[in-house]
Formats: sequence, structure tokens, C-alpha cells
Amino acid sequence: MSTLKGACIIGQSGGPTSVINASAYGAIKTALENENITAVYGACNGIKGVLEDRLIDMSKEDKEELALMRTTPSSALGSCRYKLKDPDVDDTDYKRILEIFKKYDVRYFFYNGGNDSMDTCNKISKFMLKNGYECRVMGIPKTIDNDLAGTDHCPGYASAAKYIATSLMEIYHDARVYDTGMITVVEIMGRNAGWLTAAAALAVAKGNGPDLIYCPENDFDLEAEMEKIEKIYKANGKCIIAVSEGIKDKNGKYISEYGNDLTNAKDGFGHAQLGGLASYLAGVIKERTGAKVRGVELSLLQRCAAHCASLTDINESFLAGKSAVEYATSGVTDKMVGFERSYDANGKYVCNIKLFDLTLVANTEKKIPADWFNATKDGLNEKFIQYALPLIQGETDMVKEDGLPRFVHLKKILAK
Amino acid sequence: MSTLKGACIIGQSGGPTSVINASAYGAIKTALENENITAVYGACNGIKGVLEDRLIDMSKEDKEELALMRTTPSSALGSCRYKLKDPDVDDTDYKRILEIFKKYDVRYFFYNGGNDSMDTCNKISKFMLKNGYECRVMGIPKTIDNDLAGTDHCPGYASAAKYIATSLMEIYHDARVYDTGMITVVEIMGRNAGWLTAAAALAVAKGNGPDLIYCPENDFDLEAEMEKIEKIYKANGKCIIAVSEGIKDKNGKYISEYGNDLTNAKDGFGHAQLGGLASYLAGVIKERTGAKVRGVELSLLQRCAAHCASLTDINESFLAGKSAVEYATSGVTDKMVGFERSYDANGKYVCNIKLFDLTLVANTEKKIPADWFNATKDGLNEKFIQYALPLIQGETDMVKEDGLPRFVHLKKILAK
Repeated sequence: MSTLKGACIIGQSGGPTSVINASAYGAIKTALENENITAVYGACNGIKGVLEDRLIDMSKEDKEELALMRTTPSSALGSCRYKLKDPDVDDTDYKRILEIFKKYDVRYFFYNGGNDSMDTCNKISKFMLKNGYECRVMGIPKTIDNDLAGTDHCPGYASAAKYIATSLMEIYHDARVYDTGMITVVEIMGRNAGWLTAAAALAVAKGNGPDLIYCPENDFDLEAEMEKIEKIYKANGKCIIAVSEGIKDKNGKYISEYGNDLTNAKDGFGHAQLGGLASYLAGVIKERTGAKVRGVELSLLQRCAAHCASLTDINESFLAGKSAVEYATSGVTDKMVGFERSYDANGKYVCNIKLFDLTLVANTEKKIPADWFNATKDGLNEKFIQYALPLIQGETDMVKEDGLPRFVHLKKILAK
Repeated sequence: MSTLKGACIIGQSGGPTSVINASAYGAIKTALENENITAVYGACNGIKGVLEDRLIDMSKEDKEELALMRTTPSSALGSCRYKLKDPDVDDTDYKRILEIFKKYDVRYFFYNGGNDSMDTCNKISKFMLKNGYECRVMGIPKTIDNDLAGTDHCPGYASAAKYIATSLMEIYHDARVYDTGMITVVEIMGRNAGWLTAAAALAVAKGNGPDLIYCPENDFDLEAEMEKIEKIYKANGKCIIAVSEGIKDKNGKYISEYGNDLTNAKDGFGHAQLGGLASYLAGVIKERTGAKVRGVELSLLQRCAAHCASLTDINESFLAGKSAVEYATSGVTDKMVGFERSYDANGKYVCNIKLFDLTLVANTEKKIPADWFNATKDGLNEKFIQYALPLIQGETDMVKEDGLPRFVHLKKILAK
């Protein structure tokens, strides 16, 4: 083990999750307690905060308040979608990052995000190495999409999955309250991978789930599926459909685009009618069946409903942040901290930390295995349930005040 | 006190809430334990189940399972929107109800619903009286809309309010994660009364709420409000707007109708584009400001998100059902059980049961008092907060199984 003394920066990037702050807090807390780390800085709005010299001195935060990060959704330090250029083409940003690193004697860089963030880590790490500046770079994954390669699952996915499954169980009860006909279409996030939509299968496993689940892993044949929907509706008077925003037809065209074509072609006022897939499908189904149809978008709450977070996810996310700091201070660099699953002697799920190459993670996207779907590709089988169920266990221990969440308020005092 | 022995029917009507089953369970449990009540029947789909002779024998249900009704959303017995005719015009239905009451020796009728249900209670009660059939009729209120007259508040409102305030606090964090501009429009239920939308003010009170709150109690001037939105956006780079689906312009036209005009006029395919108010307003705001705008509908979850129910609401709803049975068996009839608020010596909120005339409740609609709004009519003041905050206290004690809600499964064995 080689000892490296210096400051560290922790940054957050990409879209919110319910637990990304649990990871950041895991890293910050561990770094603040580590004797080799001389200062702990939080980057405002991810790598943009590094480029713009906006670094929060985390030691100035009240410790009890800081602990509330663990159950506060979205990125408490602020996020960005800034993509660094290829350093071989334009290394301006990298030179600036090196300048900031030198200014604050930064020897550890922890970046908390999805594919793009792992790519950012990878590029920074290689640039520092090339320029002979010793700095350990670690990626801490987060994404509700669960599409990062290597790791068994991603911090953030389970809380979104728990919210989706819970909400669908509740919608199931709502959608069958009358003895009149009703079809409900629930649109769930996920452009390329169906992990979030697949979480609807957990509600099915509890007997309170949708009739049909459509993921982007399978081509969506509108005509064939309309027949199926009509048949279920005629038999039961009800039909609940969980559908990923990213479903495509066999030519690779997003089904939501058909809806956009329809609205854009019609709109002479320049008003963007932002109706999504659920509203388009609801229209088509209504026309076809004559039924009362409701389109529901789970929308932003999927990624920020911390009140329904999985305690397993919170704890694993914290562990990912903590482990990143521990590995880095013990000499590891250029890796993403991820998870490997095992089962103990009693068959109980165990989550182990495993390190992954940043290069691998940055350039691949993990989809649901084909054999986890049912034969008709409109539902998931037991393999998915066994995978997902352990991840959503446990309820959040979020602090409440006056019956509402008590989220963190950071002072955000900038380092000089 | 006059003793009346006989069977009872409990029915549920109108749209779902997270706690309507808590009221029904309060009534069922109390009735099952009462020596003057000889049988307890649950009407399938409300008054329709009475007319169609579909009555569930509640004594056949497993007691432990039945107790899960308390935390199961939507109407476990099934609901209806069936409106009885004026008995002076057509008394067919009433004669049929009397026939069923006689068949099962029903001497107690408890109906759990909103305005229309109180009207149903009222008409049935008067018909039975006129026909010399002794039967005690009690209304048990429920509505997320909180618009029933007399009662301080309605069972079901607080849980919806808690969900709305919690979700808005989470959306607040989500909506400000990037340092780029963003406007978020959140559409909340409530056609005529703004109680649900006003719950967004609870999030404001916690410092994590929307900038603007629009309720149907006040005329909505699109041009004036666009100016306000633009100003906030320019100053802060963010603007969050909570808006009731029922806002109208000064001529009484729903703002959502302008959106419908736009889409219907354009739609040549016969597809009903079901975009709502949020999507219409998002389009208008986007055109005006050029900002990135997101429209979010809280949709069905507002009325069925039992996972975020208020424990106060659950307990009060149960109490309303229990009290209805206790009052009826002690001689009261033709009343709705409601709430009156008081404060104890320590200033702590206390909820007392109070009886209201069904006639009063059936024909009036309670709106937010004008002096509970701020001067600019785009927010609520301290009077609303003091009213609403005690109602949302406490977290649901819902039973969980595998990290998901364990909702009731009734056997629903029909009475012969």
C-alpha cells in the first residue's frame, strides 16, 4: 500500500436518483475521517464546478445536518450534463482541471454518476497519468436505469423499482374500483433498457400488477399488442399496461414518435404539446376499444421519490461511496466501485463490493437478458423477480419533521 | 336510547382515497362486535350491490385479513357512481332497496362517500321513514377533495395532501439539480375546490415548495401569470408551479379547455390526445420563455398512494366509521359523521366527532376561505398551514411483505 496525502474532490453528475446523495455522503464522511485526506471538497454541479473553481469545503458543514444527505433525493452538490472533449482533440478542460487539482493539492477524485461520468473519470485519470500528476480517480455508480455494465445492479435502481412496484400496486386497486370498463396505461422511464419498467413485474408477483409489461428490449408491434389488449379488456373489463417510454417498432422507430408526428403536424400555434407515450397509446387504445382509458406518467417521482426508497439501496449506495474512498486511499485508482451478488448459507442475498475497469463501464450498456422475459415478451419471469426482489427490501429511515421529509440544507461555503 | 335489532349494510361510493377502507373497516369491525347488529353485509359496488342483491357476508372474512383493509387504498368492497333518481319522480330503485332491506332485515345502512353519497343516504332515509320501515341511515364522509360542508375536514384529504406536499418537496430537489434553466408545472386534482393544490403550500412552509400555487377559487389570468412566471424564471433560473386542474379564466372557462380546443381542432386521425392542463401550460410557458419546461401530472397516485398516507387520517377515518355505527345503534339516524377541531391546553390539535345533517352536506360545497390566500392569489398564508399541518402528522403503519405493501384480499362470500 502506497500512502498518498492530499485533498479530495467529490462530484455528482447526471440525472437525480433517490440515493445519489447517500453515495456522496458515504464518500464525504469517510474522507473527512481519513488521515491521508487533508481536505474534502464538494464540486458544485459536478465537473463544471471544478472547471469554474466552485468547490465547497465540506468540513465547514454541520455534521448532523450533513448526515441528512443520506436520505435527501437528487444531487445535493448540484449536477451537470457536461461532457468532456476527447483530450487528443482538445485538452483545454483537462489542463484547467489539472490547474485546479494543483491549486488545492487534490490527490483524490471521486465522481458519482452514470456511463458518461465513468467516461469523465476515465479521461481525467489517463490525462493525469500522462502528465505525471499523481491522483487517484474512482467512479461511484448511480443510475435509476440500471444499465451500467459489470456491476450486478446500480445504486439508485432499487429505490426507483420499489416506487414503481408500489405505485403500480396502488394504481391496480384504483383502476378496478368501479364495475365499469377501464384501461390504464402507465408510462415508465427508460429509453434503451427496460429495468425500470420490468419492476412492474414485482407488483404482478404480489397479485396486484399490470396485465402487460412492455420493455424496449423487445420490438413493439402496435397491431398485435392492440389485439391482446382488446382481448384482455373484453374478458376482464379491465386492463393495466406498464410501458417503457423507450419502446420501438421493428424498424427502430420510437412508438412515442408516432404521437409526436401526430401532434407536431397539427400544431399551428407553435405550442409544443408535450403529450408523451402514455397519452398517445391511450388515444389509440380508446379509439380501438371504445373503453375509458387513462394514461399515467410516473414522471419525475420515479427518480426522486425518496419517501419510498429502499433501505437496501440507501445502505448499498452509502457503502459504494465509502468503499471508493477506502480503496483509493489504499492505493487503487482508475476503477468504478460496483456490486457483486452472492447468497449466504441460508440463501440470503449478500451484496459485495467489486471493482470494475472504467473503460469497460464507460462504453457498454446493460440490458435485461432475453431469457428473463416470458414467451410472449409482455412480462417478466421468475429470473427477474429473484434478481430484483432482494434489492427493494427495507423502508427508508428518512428523518421526518411535521409529517414531512427533513431534507439536508448545506451551507455550501466555497473553498478559497 | 331505543334498541333496534337487525342487520346492517356498509357501502362505498365515489372515487378512491387512500383511507376510505379505514372508515369501512371501522364500521365493519364495530358492527361485527355490536350485539344489536345481527349480520354485517358489505355492498358490492355501493348502492348498485344493494339493488342487484350482491351483499358480502363480512362475518365470513378472516379477522386478521380484514384488518388489512385499514391500510389498503381504494374501495375494497367496490364503488359506483350510480345516482339515485328523485323518489318523487321515479321510486323504482327505492322500492327495490326496501325489498332488499326487508329480505335481509337490514335496520342499519352506512354509506361511505362524498356529496352524492350523502344525497343517496338522505333520500333513502326519507323514503324508509315515509314507508314506515324503521332503519337508521348514517353517512361516513370520504373525499380527497375536502369539499364537504360542515365537517372541519374530510377523511382522505390529509393523506392526499401529505402525498402532494411530500412529492412537491422531492420534485423541488429534482427540478434544481442542474445549473441550467428549468420550469416545472405540476398539475394537481380538484375541479372546483383548491384544497389539494393548496397542500403544495406545506412544501413551501418547509422551504422546498413551488414558487406559485394556483387554485380554482381565484380567476386565472393567463397573461398576468405568464409575466410573473417569466420574472421568477429570469431572476432564479428556476420556477416551480403547482396548479389545480380546475383553474378557470374570469369568464369561467377552464384553462384546460383551451388546451383541448387546440388539440381537438388539430386532430384529424380521431385519436384523442389526452394531454391535460400541465401539458398545455408547459407548452404556453415554453413558447413564452424559451425555457426547458416540464409538465407533471400527479394523476391517480394522489388518491391512492397509501404508502404515503397520514396516520392521523387513517385513525380519524377509522374513527368516523366506528362512530357511525355507535351513534346509529344508540338511536341516531339521518346524519353524517364529521369532525370538529379543538386544541387542548398545550395547543395540541384534537379531532372530535360531530354529527351533521345530511341535507346540509348533500347540497353545499366547501371552498378555501378567501382570506387564506396571499394578497397576490398565488399562494396560501399561515391560516392554511395551521389548518392543514396537524392533519398530515404520522406515518402509515401499513403491513409490508417483501418490501411491498400487503393489501387486503377479501373472500367476498355473498349472502344468500
